[in-house]
Amino acid sequence: MERSKDKGPDAVVLVSGGLDSAVTLASAANEGYVCHSLSFDYRQRHHIELAAAGKISRLLGAADHRVVRIDLSAIGASALTADIDVPKHSKIKPGDSGIPVTYVPARNTIFLSVALGLAEVLEARDIFIGVNAVDYSGYPDCRPEYIRAFESMANLATRAAVEKNQKVTIHTPLINLPKSEIIRKGVELGVDFSFTTSCYDPSPEGLACGLCDSCRIRRDGFAKAGIPDPTGYLKDRK
Amino acid sequence: MERSKDKGPDAVVLVSGGLDSAVTLASAANEGYVCHSLSFDYRQRHHIELAAAGKISRLLGAADHRVVRIDLSAIGASALTADIDVPKHSKIKPGDSGIPVTYVPARNTIFLSVALGLAEVLEARDIFIGVNAVDYSGYPDCRPEYIRAFESMANLATRAAVEKNQKVTIHTPLINLPKSEIIRKGVELGVDFSFTTSCYDPSPEGLACGLCDSCRIRRDGFAKAGIPDPTGYLKDRK
Repeated sequence: MERSKDKGPDAVVLVSGGLDSAVTLASAANEGYVCHSLSFDYRQRHHIELAAAGKISRLLGAADHRVVRIDLSAIGASALTADIDVPKHSKIKPGDSGIPVTYVPARNTIFLSVALGLAEVLEARDIFIGVNAVDYSGYPDCRPEYIRAFESMANLATRAAVEKNQKVTIHTPLINLPKSEIIRKGVELGVDFSFTTSCYDPSPEGLACGLCDSCRIRRDGFAKAGIPDPTGYLKDRK
Repeated sequence: MERSKDKGPDAVVLVSGGLDSAVTLASAANEGYVCHSLSFDYRQRHHIELAAAGKISRLLGAADHRVVRIDLSAIGASALTADIDVPKHSKIKPGDSGIPVTYVPARNTIFLSVALGLAEVLEARDIFIGVNAVDYSGYPDCRPEYIRAFESMANLATRAAVEKNQKVTIHTPLINLPKSEIIRKGVELGVDFSFTTSCYDPSPEGLACGLCDSCRIRRDGFAKAGIPDPTGYLKDRK
């Protein structure tokens, strides 16, 4: 798939290395945006994600890929940043009101804030984030009402918005899609999912556990989409 | 001044090492909050600020002081983080619409986002920030409408707000005060301003330049308040 790297408006795309953000990046590129990938090194336990984010950015024609280091360990606990065991065989089903311990406090707010700063520096008016309110694992900062509130705040926050009336739009192309539809959309856009990683607790070799909430949602998505799952799993699902 | 360290509600207070945030911390403590100071090491050129933030936090009875490291150099330019000269003898007067190059893109949004995460971890419902819309050097993220929009967004963002209805309030005790009133308030609350630092471009020994916008606003504030300025300046104002 060929994409122009020097035409179209600039967009900042949050790329985590996971499945959803890969499809988000592919969508933004397909709409003609010049994509600037942004990832975070927030002392998550698996730097495998950052390597995947870099590879996906290159494969999907991003103009560049930035990694911002932020040490969230100073503000405390989550299974993704602290020494809490990642729950296996969780009773929580997608859509339940229970919010899992893998929740990182204010994570999307922090990430979108930095994306907003980068957008201002690049004079970009568009930010893409792959949040999903259907199979969203119960994170409040994945809901449409949260995204609209962030956008309103952003348009009062920056010099670009206030001085030059360059309003920012937060794009969430996946927000209402079930995982199976996200996977179908990605296949249509040429995403090679073997380079994406979803597992909260991968092995040192980068194999997915197959058992955490994120692996379960991913596996179910491929099964429902009727598309073979290219993920290397450590264990078969019981 | 004695303050209880184990009573009263918890609050997260953004403390920069400057004059305004010191008075903000003193105000929060005076209102009976157990104060948790939060500062950022964002590769600003003067770590003098962080040392001042720690000292002020101790002197004003904060329960603890956290420093979150975030490398904003990856997202680009500002005179406070990049190699741009800090302007001296600026033509910009406080209240002008011109926003100076010392602006850090989305800075308050990023800082408040991390404060929001910490508040959630601490189960605190109150965040204090020393923004000021009067002598504000032209930063859009110091205005009341921005703060209210952040608060609205925050109350859709977190598990605490969504699950437990623990709404967050962003307190801005200085937002409508001129610098001279902030200084008077600080003196009333026992703030020793000799430990605060305002200069955008201090000498290696920690002396203020006396010429940058921030120094000029500070000096004018002490003069108008009729209070001797304890700051060590490198040069007298011309």
